[in-house]
Amino acid sequence: MKPNFTLRLRVFNLNCWGIPYLSKHRADRVKRLGDFLNMESFDLALLEEVWSEQDFQDLRQKLLPTYPAAHYFRSGIIGSGLCVFSKHPIQEFTQHVFTLNGYPYMIHHGDWFCGKAVGLLVLHLSGLVLNAYVTHLHAEYNRQKDVYLAHRVAQAWELAQFIHHTSKKADMVLLCGDLNLHPKDLGCRLLKEWTGLCDAYLETRDFKGSEEGCTMVPENCYVNRRELEQFPLGIRIDYVLYKAVSGLYISCKTFKTTTGHDPHSGTPLSDHEALMATLCVRHSPPQHTSSPSHGPAERSALISVLREAWTELDQGMAQALWWATITGYVIGLGLLLLALLCALAVGGGIREVVILLWTPSVGLVLGAGAVYLFHVQEAKGLCRARAELQHVLGRAREAQDLSPESQPALQPGRQEGDRAEEQ
Amino acid sequence: MKPNFTLRLRVFNLNCWGIPYLSKHRADRVKRLGDFLNMESFDLALLEEVWSEQDFQDLRQKLLPTYPAAHYFRSGIIGSGLCVFSKHPIQEFTQHVFTLNGYPYMIHHGDWFCGKAVGLLVLHLSGLVLNAYVTHLHAEYNRQKDVYLAHRVAQAWELAQFIHHTSKKADMVLLCGDLNLHPKDLGCRLLKEWTGLCDAYLETRDFKGSEEGCTMVPENCYVNRRELEQFPLGIRIDYVLYKAVSGLYISCKTFKTTTGHDPHSGTPLSDHEALMATLCVRHSPPQHTSSPSHGPAERSALISVLREAWTELDQGMAQALWWATITGYVIGLGLLLLALLCALAVGGGIREVVILLWTPSVGLVLGAGAVYLFHVQEAKGLCRARAELQHVLGRAREAQDLSPESQPALQPGRQEGDRAEEQ
Repeated sequence: MKPNFTLRLRVFNLNCWGIPYLSKHRADRVKRLGDFLNMESFDLALLEEVWSEQDFQDLRQKLLPTYPAAHYFRSGIIGSGLCVFSKHPIQEFTQHVFTLNGYPYMIHHGDWFCGKAVGLLVLHLSGLVLNAYVTHLHAEYNRQKDVYLAHRVAQAWELAQFIHHTSKKADMVLLCGDLNLHPKDLGCRLLKEWTGLCDAYLETRDFKGSEEGCTMVPENCYVNRRELEQFPLGIRIDYVLYKAVSGLYISCKTFKTTTGHDPHSGTPLSDHEALMATLCVRHSPPQHTSSPSHGPAERSALISVLREAWTELDQGMAQALWWATITGYVIGLGLLLLALLCALAVGGGIREVVILLWTPSVGLVLGAGAVYLFHVQEAKGLCRARAELQHVLGRAREAQDLSPESQPALQPGRQEGDRAEEQ
Repeated sequence: MKPNFTLRLRVFNLNCWGIPYLSKHRADRVKRLGDFLNMESFDLALLEEVWSEQDFQDLRQKLLPTYPAAHYFRSGIIGSGLCVFSKHPIQEFTQHVFTLNGYPYMIHHGDWFCGKAVGLLVLHLSGLVLNAYVTHLHAEYNRQKDVYLAHRVAQAWELAQFIHHTSKKADMVLLCGDLNLHPKDLGCRLLKEWTGLCDAYLETRDFKGSEEGCTMVPENCYVNRRELEQFPLGIRIDYVLYKAVSGLYISCKTFKTTTGHDPHSGTPLSDHEALMATLCVRHSPPQHTSSPSHGPAERSALISVLREAWTELDQGMAQALWWATITGYVIGLGLLLLALLCALAVGGGIREVVILLWTPSVGLVLGAGAVYLFHVQEAKGLCRARAELQHVLGRAREAQDLSPESQPALQPGRQEGDRAEEQ
């Protein structure tokens, strides 16, 4: 790599809102998205909510001359909805499906059926290794009473851990996607603190687009304005995040979003806004550390967010165990009822009642059994994430205790981390 | 690291057969295992089939002075059964749960309920980074007609990919576990070819233990001898595999297995044999390459095993789609029956028949619906693994074509890899 080397990387991200039969003007929007991507010729285009594999194949066909490499990440029943188009050859790819992703009985929300995941692409650009990740976390349906909060925090943690463990030898890390997290939400802070990723919108000096970088705005005709009532400017839940890992420095030269309209004409490309970032990769100047610094301030921020996440996962676990207990009782009741019906049938009692109640009772036992098993598995998943978090928390605290600048005032309650390796 | 540096690593692996209420003499065996591990003081003890978390906690309590660090990997409904005890601090840990792991309706086999996984531990030993993995793949219940073959191959591939992507910066990689694969089985060859891991049993010059290194032997009183009818010496399905990644050389100084008896007295520790390996890590001598070589012979072996795995996954996918189609028809029939019953009820027809048939029909539709969704997800999981495999196959073939020693005779049919990036 030459001393005055500069690598310019143009990245595109969009949650495409591509639900077959449900999303408005889907075919037209996919067509216009293809035209736009061809015209702009980005290095990488990372897309979410491409639920129809046919849409991916159509796009692939159209984009082949400009983006010779492409991949669709398959998972779950419906699919992850994630795909990527690249101007450069994809050296390697793999994916990680999140352990927790909502509830199968919340059919109207549907997230569970998608198999939400994070996809990883490894690219070699000018002798540098770029690990590019694309993801989509569980949606937020009710911000006031968010029953999926623990799952989303667990997903943010799994995402952070996947990036942490798979990017150790990468020179650059890029994460794009719909995190369904506002910038100050716990999951977003957890992800950034643990991975050291920088937010392109916050880092750039040249931003053009929607106010405050929002990626769902009321100007967009596909957005349900009632859902944005509390946020008159909109919300920012889609991100371009990046970091340099070794001896390099990345800066975000320009960052653009669409503003609720098509970049050229027609309706918007999606109900989300598209993100376009130009990243510049250079040798790390002396005043910049290439990896996230681990001074006392960073450590205490990490400790604080880890504790918050630990508490959230702990509450989620308690909730999961509560549901498992309740359904356990329902199973017991159902079995009692079945025994009673058996006794009635044998005794020649009211036969019509037995016939009528037998099948609902079996249904009750089987249904409650399935829900019970689901919540047992949910508790195990949350417990696993909590154990990993607890271990990192313990080590961060040890580092804080050992550092000369350690501030005892920053370590109030130690109950969660005391048994850091006892998981 | 000093020039004449040597690191000695003593590793223990055992599938503990710790099924609560079902495994014989469980409490006694766990107690004796604890005594043995304490006495031998290994660097790392990696265990599988510790299904009861209480067993882990009891062992942890007992082993605390000798193995201060421990971790239990939680997943699925029952759990992964994996745990680890370490003499050295565990720097980091995480896990990956396999996407495919049998069928929920095969309740008597139970694998689906376990959430089989691979656990990763990162340890720092004398300034070197050791990535230690512990795993347990889906059991083989019928070698002649193995309905789980595609799942086990997909698991071996996911395991290989997880190791490949998470160990890039490690100095040493260690994988222990019950692979449920014979040494020449497709999954085992795939794992070894793609990761470059060496088999401690095959590499050591000092082996003591059961004949041919078998890890399930007829001498073991807990083993069902009928299952070993075809293999009079036993089978080798548990492994210690290792490799050095950068400038280092690992050799297996000694390798021992138990031989169907307790190392000291009493019944065996499990129905599997325990593995004990002493590994020596040194600077790579000039004649050794530290990473797996990628000469034409290795490449053609990789290509051959990738093609075999591709075919197996493809057949598995066809099977999954066949089941999805069949259950789709059953759903259709069930819905037709329900419509007919509705018509009968409205028309005031044979009421008793309607009452009797209504609930089984609903049950049929719901049951078939669940099985349908499961097989759709199975097909997606197999398709994902096949796409990753296909991509690696395409790149291996490109490398073969580009290499000066390329042998055209080794590339007979190219139909699978031709569209390597078109997944």
